Amino acid sequence: MGRIHANAWRQAQLFFDFACRPALAVVASGHPRTSSNFAVKWGVLKAASSWDRLIKDPKVALVDVCVPNYMHAQVSIAALKAGKHVACEKPLGTTITEARDMAMAALEAKNGARTFVWFNYRRCPAVSLMRELIHEGRLGRIRHIRAHYLQDWGRASTAHSWRFDSKLAGSGAHGDLNSHIVDMARFVTGDEIVQVCGAMEAQFIHERAVVTASSKNLGLGAQKSKRGAKRQASTVDDAFLFLARMRNGAVASFEASRMATGNKNANCMEINGELGSVKFDFERMNELQWWDDTLPAREQGWSKILCTEPSHPYVGHFWPPGHVHGYEHQFISMAADICAVLAGGEPAQPLADFVDAYRTQQVLEAAIISARERCWMQTDAL
Amino acid sequence: MGRIHANAWRQAQLFFDFACRPALAVVASGHPRTSSNFAVKWGVLKAASSWDRLIKDPKVALVDVCVPNYMHAQVSIAALKAGKHVACEKPLGTTITEARDMAMAALEAKNGARTFVWFNYRRCPAVSLMRELIHEGRLGRIRHIRAHYLQDWGRASTAHSWRFDSKLAGSGAHGDLNSHIVDMARFVTGDEIVQVCGAMEAQFIHERAVVTASSKNLGLGAQKSKRGAKRQASTVDDAFLFLARMRNGAVASFEASRMATGNKNANCMEINGELGSVKFDFERMNELQWWDDTLPAREQGWSKILCTEPSHPYVGHFWPPGHVHGYEHQFISMAADICAVLAGGEPAQPLADFVDAYRTQQVLEAAIISARERCWMQTDAL
Amino acid sequence: MGRIHANAWRQAQLFFDFACRPALAVVASGHPRTSSNFAVKWGVLKAASSWDRLIKDPKVALVDVCVPNYMHAQVSIAALKAGKHVACEKPLGTTITEARDMAMAALEAKNGARTFVWFNYRRCPAVSLMRELIHEGRLGRIRHIRAHYLQDWGRASTAHSWRFDSKLAGSGAHGDLNSHIVDMARFVTGDEIVQVCGAMEAQFIHERAVVTASSKNLGLGAQKSKRGAKRQASTVDDAFLFLARMRNGAVASFEASRMATGNKNANCMEINGELGSVKFDFERMNELQWWDDTLPAREQGWSKILCTEPSHPYVGHFWPPGHVHGYEHQFISMAADICAVLAGGEPAQPLADFVDAYRTQQVLEAAIISARERCWMQTDAL
Amino acid sequence: MGRIHANAWRQAQLFFDFACRPALAVVASGHPRTSSNFAVKWGVLKAASSWDRLIKDPKVALVDVCVPNYMHAQVSIAALKAGKHVACEKPLGTTITEARDMAMAALEAKNGARTFVWFNYRRCPAVSLMRELIHEGRLGRIRHIRAHYLQDWGRASTAHSWRFDSKLAGSGAHGDLNSHIVDMARFVTGDEIVQVCGAMEAQFIHERAVVTASSKNLGLGAQKSKRGAKRQASTVDDAFLFLARMRNGAVASFEASRMATGNKNANCMEINGELGSVKFDFERMNELQWWDDTLPAREQGWSKILCTEPSHPYVGHFWPPGHVHGYEHQFISMAADICAVLAGGEPAQPLADFVDAYRTQQVLEAAIISARERCWMQTDAL
Repeated sequence: MGRIHANAWRQAQLFFDFACRPALAVVASGHPRTSSNFAVKWGVLKAASSWDRLIKDPKVALVDVCVPNYMHAQVSIAALKAGKHVACEKPLGTTITEARDMAMAALEAKNGARTFVWFNYRRCPAVSLMRELIHEGRLGRIRHIRAHYLQDWGRASTAHSWRFDSKLAGSGAHGDLNSHIVDMARFVTGDEIVQVCGAMEAQFIHERAVVTASSKNLGLGAQKSKRGAKRQASTVDDAFLFLARMRNGAVASFEASRMATGNKNANCMEINGELGSVKFDFERMNELQWWDDTLPAREQGWSKILCTEPSHPYVGHFWPPGHVHGYEHQFISMAADICAVLAGGEPAQPLADFVDAYRTQQVLEAAIISARERCWMQTDAL
Repeated sequence: MGRIHANAWRQAQLFFDFACRPALAVVASGHPRTSSNFAVKWGVLKAASSWDRLIKDPKVALVDVCVPNYMHAQVSIAALKAGKHVACEKPLGTTITEARDMAMAALEAKNGARTFVWFNYRRCPAVSLMRELIHEGRLGRIRHIRAHYLQDWGRASTAHSWRFDSKLAGSGAHGDLNSHIVDMARFVTGDEIVQVCGAMEAQFIHERAVVTASSKNLGLGAQKSKRGAKRQASTVDDAFLFLARMRNGAVASFEASRMATGNKNANCMEINGELGSVKFDFERMNELQWWDDTLPAREQGWSKILCTEPSHPYVGHFWPPGHVHGYEHQFISMAADICAVLAGGEPAQPLADFVDAYRTQQVLEAAIISARERCWMQTDAL
Repeated sequence: MGRIHANAWRQAQLFFDFACRPALAVVASGHPRTSSNFAVKWGVLKAASSWDRLIKDPKVALVDVCVPNYMHAQVSIAALKAGKHVACEKPLGTTITEARDMAMAALEAKNGARTFVWFNYRRCPAVSLMRELIHEGRLGRIRHIRAHYLQDWGRASTAHSWRFDSKLAGSGAHGDLNSHIVDMARFVTGDEIVQVCGAMEAQFIHERAVVTASSKNLGLGAQKSKRGAKRQASTVDDAFLFLARMRNGAVASFEASRMATGNKNANCMEINGELGSVKFDFERMNELQWWDDTLPAREQGWSKILCTEPSHPYVGHFWPPGHVHGYEHQFISMAADICAVLAGGEPAQPLADFVDAYRTQQVLEAAIISARERCWMQTDAL
Repeated sequence: MGRIHANAWRQAQLFFDFACRPALAVVASGHPRTSSNFAVKWGVLKAASSWDRLIKDPKVALVDVCVPNYMHAQVSIAALKAGKHVACEKPLGTTITEARDMAMAALEAKNGARTFVWFNYRRCPAVSLMRELIHEGRLGRIRHIRAHYLQDWGRASTAHSWRFDSKLAGSGAHGDLNSHIVDMARFVTGDEIVQVCGAMEAQFIHERAVVTASSKNLGLGAQKSKRGAKRQASTVDDAFLFLARMRNGAVASFEASRMATGNKNANCMEINGELGSVKFDFERMNELQWWDDTLPAREQGWSKILCTEPSHPYVGHFWPPGHVHGYEHQFISMAADICAVLAGGEPAQPLADFVDAYRTQQVLEAAIISARERCWMQTDAL
């Protein structure tokens, strides 16, 4: 994630125009060597020996918190106390308590320190367009939200990492992936999830091989394990599903999985309204499916909008129509929006701050409690 | 539904070879005129004045029950008692009690009377192929079942009909659509749903206009209402979602809706296993999406199998490769399989009898109870 | 093809209402046994010992010519002379001379004998809808027609049959497949192809194994050859491409192939106009892709119209929305339109007669001549 | 195009590791102001007052020629003479003579000066993968190449620019778009186009409004014209189609258009071989469709490979699986491959030099001559 963030800050200046020109001032990581190598490669002015040095550096205006989940609260709160703006990776904290502390710290921050949470998908042009259509009333009253975020790198052969340790990660697919789609549902509809109406957690793999440092990273933190390797307990959910109700009465379902074979990064959402529907799949991030129910029945269809027109959110900053965008563009656009805000302007699309992200975390927490209450019904009991 | 059934029995003889040659012997409906017109058009030998006459007619070997849901139990049980084979439309009954009575009647039937339930999707070539792949172990251990059956004809402007009256229909989208996907999930996996782990029912429309007999049917029983028309309460669910667990540990979700704008007949199911995945959408019924996770990563992909090869289930009876099938083929193949069974043979794919359909109904009932228990968690209570 | 035609005549009566009720009166084929078996199965009143007896039978009003291509002219002309209406399979004749003779015979027919050619794709709802949109001016001035009809059953292992013998079939993929898309292009645009501007013929396979009568038919006339079998020359094109210009200035390309691996029945056409575009692929025959360029750029997209609404051509006669159609529906709708015409009415969509089909054949012939003139340019001659 | 090139050189260093670290040394454009602004923004060390100064600058090792087509030859040849490496945008020249001169200059270049042509699509992971599969023999003998590159920005309302002036651009869609797909066909198959067998050129729009400098660029050089504006002749083709034959006997078709409504950047290619087929559409650049005809018929299908695995070409340098790539990645990968070559290494996929690009230009020229010879056949002449 460090690379994608550094890239975002650098590229934002090239594709967007704004008053404040961000420089990558200081980088810190667990290993000084890593930090200094990173600094050289990505043009960071300085490598700090530790994160607490970094947050005290007067050159630093904004701290980009991009560390394992269990450190989010600690680093963010300290940075806020040091008077820095903070942009933190999701999920907010590993527990609801941590998240609440972070939201409180944001509310109490002095000197106008701002907080941001990297819900990057908000700036995918197709997702922003979903929001625009809904906010303009094109879908009418919303009836259904159907969301799942499916990956498949959590297979049994994948080696252990901090992501499988509940103490370091908080949760598994739930915090990692459901956090994204809960935020997206709230973002695009402008509505709130008021009730969780059923939830189910699944853990398919209970221990994983430990891989030595020399092994090669295979992407997404997934590392293949070796035979006969030492094994360590996996203590997070592999999949998590829940049902919910929105304030306006719509019904919603959310599902996250790291074991949905064939799905690499299927962040999918369909929303059905009285007047229209939208459908999105990140694996085809340049496309939004749009159904306009006000057209004559003969002409209605799922319209595959290729979101590369100048009239689509963020697109005008990049390439001509038909020249598709990639994963990193969302981060670039978010970095640009943060810069715009810090320079006193408005973001092109709303940004999530810690208080906003805390609401997302409340939903995740309600789902966890609901899943553990086990309101189950045996089907053969009838 | 009468047309699609009559067509199935007629066409089965032309496309399949079997010992017993079914004739459409007697037809009965609520209106004698309707019955006799139907008989003339579809080549039925006789029109009976009432269904109880029909079931006593010695010419009748099998009674095809294709009437509003609230009559399923009454007619089917009477027919079984009269020693007839019975093929009943789904859902089995409007209540779990009715369904249990039907299953009991089937178990107690004399003279080897057989029962069948029209879960037609089992005979869609792509669905049968899903089952074959799973039964051959090609998906390995199943982790996920993700099913929804979405339609959109239940919009506010649709007129009242028996389908919106809980006394006549039992339920709305739940019994009508979830029954199909619960059966499909059980059919293709060969596994049972043992727990419902959360459920949610939604009713968006509470009354509908009553349309006079002269109005024109717009398909699916959907009739547009007129302004100022008399209105009647709609007493069934418009959407119904639930989460479940399979005996083998897989997690499953089911959703039915009549208000999912843009979805006409989206009977969709995705199943993820350790070794592969399958995905189906009835709106593209000739296609099965298949992911083989045992191929080299470089070549893995969702493979769009066009299920029109002679090696695909039921296909050899119809047209050459690439000459796609329509909705009615499932019914034709099911009529053929019923004939095969009655002639002492085996169906090409397993058929559901009343006892099997009762298991599906138990799942639906568990979901209803679960939804009404309201194990809800407010998200802002944290 | 006999089955698909017989099925069409039978089903037309059940799904359409019209004055004249067709009965399958007489059937004839090369083998009396085949004829009488066919008659029993499909409810044909009588089996004739030869086609010339059939066309003289006073019970016969219309002769459905569904024999190998080389017999089309002979049988059709004789039937017209006997005062019968004729519905002939495509292509019209094996040579342009035969086709001209047929067209002349149709023009000279007495007693109002009508002719029809089985260009079945005209009655695919999506194809009819393309025509409607174009005729209503929704595409504006047409610029591009891009058509290909690709199959892959012509692989080297496929056994010899009459389809590979130029004397019996006239040509290979060209007459078989290009005839369909040339007719479709003319039908949907209402425009004529005035120039062929380049053509290319390819024959990849030069001899094929001969299969004995006992071998099993594998669909589309494709039979796998046995090792060591006797071999016979294949004398038709395996693929044929040509470029053309329409009277209104649009440019067009046509391609037919029996060796386009992975394409089973990919009858595909895209038409681009000033105001919109349409796109069709028979492998997804229930869908029409429609681009409306008059919408705001932000909302433009390829709209996947599921052609199963009552407002779509022919659909109202069959099933409710979302209940998809199959290959045979086109033939059923064509049989219904022929009946409508013979009863003095109008077809729902224009039918091709022999004169119309002759224009299609002129285009195919111009392409053959063009291909043989070899106006080729070596690329390294520059 | 300047932005995309500058971005490529900058990003290549961040995502690839190689010995030589390119710096953007000098930039030149027609307007000194533009040059210096560009230099500041993109971190170019120096802005030159003219291109001939730039090519003489001793700091410059490689000249990236990214100017209107009519200047390609002049600048490239001068740069080669100055002993610089040259990377030139496509098409090579505006005439075959220019292209030949460039190829000759490359052959005669001293001091090991290398040439490169920006056929960027070669480095799209899906296109590289097509090549790999073909080179490994997975498609067997190639039968068909079907290529079109369709855009729609050339509509009547688009204002005049150098791209519509044959003196400045050489040709329209043909040189701009067919050059890409001719190169791609040669690249992925490793085969040569030996004959053009028919060609057709179309010009739909004959004059366009002239837009003043103040107007806003709408992408792809497309600018909307104002009513009453001065008009200037458009002298290039809007669409260009041709048929061709490969050395190994495969048949091929190529089509380029700027008026194919609904297609934004549809660079599409399908290749059918004896053992398999591949299909690509740049609008879904992260996907390759792959048909493996050696699988059992029951399991064959078009497999949608999401080209984001570490085992896919170039992917390992960027993001984890499922995190899709955008347009610019091809340029970044090409810049990296050029650097690798200049540092004495090998490119990951073959690069086109001037001699290679000259072969592509010969094909384009043969098509132009063929189109102008007008070997046309009137269809009603028969």
